[in-house]
Amino acid sequence: MEENRDTSEQGSGGEPPARPGLSRREVLGGAVMLGVGAGLGHVLTPSGSAARAQPEAVTGAVPFHGAHQAGVVTRAQSYMHFAAFDLTSGSVDDLRSLLKEWTAAAQALTAGLPYEPSGPTTPLQVPVDGGEALGLDPAQLTITVGFGPSLFVGGRFAQNAQGPELQVLPAFIGDRLDPAHSGGDLCVQACADDPQVAFHAIHLFSRLAGPVATVRWTQLGFGRTASTTRAQTTPRNLMGFKDGTENIRAEDTAELDEYVWVQRGDEPAWMAGGTYLVARRIRILFDRWDAISLREQEQTIGRAKLSGAPLGSASEFDAMNLSATSPNGEPVIPNDAHVRIASPQTNSGQRILRRGYSYTEEVDSSAGEIDAGLFFIAFQRSPTHQFIPIQTRLSNFDALNHHTVHTSSAMFACPPGVQPGGYIGETLLS
Amino acid sequence: MEENRDTSEQGSGGEPPARPGLSRREVLGGAVMLGVGAGLGHVLTPSGSAARAQPEAVTGAVPFHGAHQAGVVTRAQSYMHFAAFDLTSGSVDDLRSLLKEWTAAAQALTAGLPYEPSGPTTPLQVPVDGGEALGLDPAQLTITVGFGPSLFVGGRFAQNAQGPELQVLPAFIGDRLDPAHSGGDLCVQACADDPQVAFHAIHLFSRLAGPVATVRWTQLGFGRTASTTRAQTTPRNLMGFKDGTENIRAEDTAELDEYVWVQRGDEPAWMAGGTYLVARRIRILFDRWDAISLREQEQTIGRAKLSGAPLGSASEFDAMNLSATSPNGEPVIPNDAHVRIASPQTNSGQRILRRGYSYTEEVDSSAGEIDAGLFFIAFQRSPTHQFIPIQTRLSNFDALNHHTVHTSSAMFACPPGVQPGGYIGETLLS
Repeated sequence: MEENRDTSEQGSGGEPPARPGLSRREVLGGAVMLGVGAGLGHVLTPSGSAARAQPEAVTGAVPFHGAHQAGVVTRAQSYMHFAAFDLTSGSVDDLRSLLKEWTAAAQALTAGLPYEPSGPTTPLQVPVDGGEALGLDPAQLTITVGFGPSLFVGGRFAQNAQGPELQVLPAFIGDRLDPAHSGGDLCVQACADDPQVAFHAIHLFSRLAGPVATVRWTQLGFGRTASTTRAQTTPRNLMGFKDGTENIRAEDTAELDEYVWVQRGDEPAWMAGGTYLVARRIRILFDRWDAISLREQEQTIGRAKLSGAPLGSASEFDAMNLSATSPNGEPVIPNDAHVRIASPQTNSGQRILRRGYSYTEEVDSSAGEIDAGLFFIAFQRSPTHQFIPIQTRLSNFDALNHHTVHTSSAMFACPPGVQPGGYIGETLLS
Repeated sequence: MEENRDTSEQGSGGEPPARPGLSRREVLGGAVMLGVGAGLGHVLTPSGSAARAQPEAVTGAVPFHGAHQAGVVTRAQSYMHFAAFDLTSGSVDDLRSLLKEWTAAAQALTAGLPYEPSGPTTPLQVPVDGGEALGLDPAQLTITVGFGPSLFVGGRFAQNAQGPELQVLPAFIGDRLDPAHSGGDLCVQACADDPQVAFHAIHLFSRLAGPVATVRWTQLGFGRTASTTRAQTTPRNLMGFKDGTENIRAEDTAELDEYVWVQRGDEPAWMAGGTYLVARRIRILFDRWDAISLREQEQTIGRAKLSGAPLGSASEFDAMNLSATSPNGEPVIPNDAHVRIASPQTNSGQRILRRGYSYTEEVDSSAGEIDAGLFFIAFQRSPTHQFIPIQTRLSNFDALNHHTVHTSSAMFACPPGVQPGGYIGETLLS
């Protein structure tokens, strides 16, 4: 038994298991040799009541109304179903009607109610709600809607409505984007602690889109890859590393105003209280990643695998010292380490709120390899000052580029939250 | 408040929520008019602490060793990651080595341990275990391995080893199978209450397959569509109907011996204690299903949507009366209703153990529709007496065929369980 457990691993206390074989800690004990020994006070108990059970099965409802849309600083749920839609109607009235209907549906579903706008379904009526969430808890469902740059093509809106931030992301070095899985006029991000609840939302929203819009692409995500509240433990991504340690959290209200929420005075005015969503599907090239040593993995990321501590530091939340050098004069955190290139210290202090999920698709038959990785989602006030320069730097210098490829890309402007009686996108459409 | 809650909805007791708007029950109240009023004593509480939270986050380990492989009668976990593999080596020794390594890995992972066969990874070594489950609970992980009929092609085994049951399933009316997502020499079914734990198993097994076998196809599943223990509540599938009400359960030991486990004296002898897995990916054609009335949905399935009761009966677990007629002489459960055609009463008493999951894939761009449905898995003692005649009947007569299409098909012989010191498939390979 050790006393100084890492408090960041909430719920991981208790007795180490009395069972034969190696503990997770012993097996990855090599990490100690990289200088993070002081951070290993916690024991990664592999099972039993003491171990952290994932996913968190949190119940109850997240309020739908508010100054901002939910699903941004909301505690990151365990699952996501994301859909991009293309409009088939050029009419602003049709779009407004759709957004009003989506608003009504989002209110019902986030409260755990089915959506039946005409009241109870009689046997001879066609149910609007498919019913697959009947009896299920709301499971913290949030619905977040955004507008893609293509929505502003074709004269639906005044020329200055789009504003300077919402744009098709530039091509980055190494991108291998699938255009059918990129872009879109509208997006709906449904997050919940039950994937069936998230699916239900996307299924219903695609039905309600009816003749006005069709689904362009969807993405199912599991295993959140960031925390958005201080109470959440840092999850591991599918590379086995803790991810999102330095994320902006819901408690960081000053940072949220500076880096996440569009402020009054920013252009365009209708986005005040909103935020820009960037989505990137980042496939892990497991044939490469799985072939390198533990040290190479840690040098690529810039953190210790077991503890999540920045290389040279003791524990996960220690400040990253990018100027530290080893006795032979080499930087402790390599010059091309992912955490260095992505760090605010390298990016003029810029930060983003990350809220991605892991994904796995069918096998890539050309590679004979599992297609899996990270469905990266980030929210920010200004993509031109935040994601775009950060990703430009990453695409040029990040050692991780050898092990990943970006296969999907999209940006959406998420308007501010909805007040009772209002509808999503009202500031743009009224 | 109503007193006679349906005890099958465990954990759904408590106060109905005090909130404006329609309850789920009120909205679907039309079902009462179909004669299931007496079964509506339970209230589907839509939220709050009283509501059933899905998915169940069950912790702890399922024993790996036993007379039968786990993952068949084991309480159905909330998630599944399934992979089919093709052998690239014709050597029986290579196959045996792989199965021994998979056995060792399955023992470690199901106990919540990482798999590092050479002991702790030093920094200069390549980790065998990717580490994405470090710190996670075993989450009831089970690993179930099976052998496809193609494994017996090419002279690896004696001519009579394959036996009469293991075969490529016949073509059924309406099949639109993707050959790249069907069949396979080997299968690994990983089920867990945490999808990251299930993914981790498939990722590791695909690495260990190394030069001996490659991944042919994979499938991620969520929202189990059957219960395998009496303690589990019946889930809803993505059509919104309760699914698997009449399933064989772990408690039905006589039925398991008769319908699930291959018995001594059955051919081939190496399968005694094993079972045959049939997998079918069944896409729901939502453009059709979502367009029909509640009554048409219920007539298609043969059950009430809200309660899950057979039409004409009061509650979910009431026996199905297939000879009941309405005053006008029509059968209460239509002649082409899914539950009638699938019923043991229609199939010489034959039953199967169902253990499927819902799935959702990317959008089918040709249809502009979400590709989602059921990844059907059934276990049985004799496919020639069970799945094949049942599915032949269904493919001819089931009203549900208008709303679904089968896009993937596979059968695997799952050998008996492993004793300490043994390995998966030992009865075939030793």
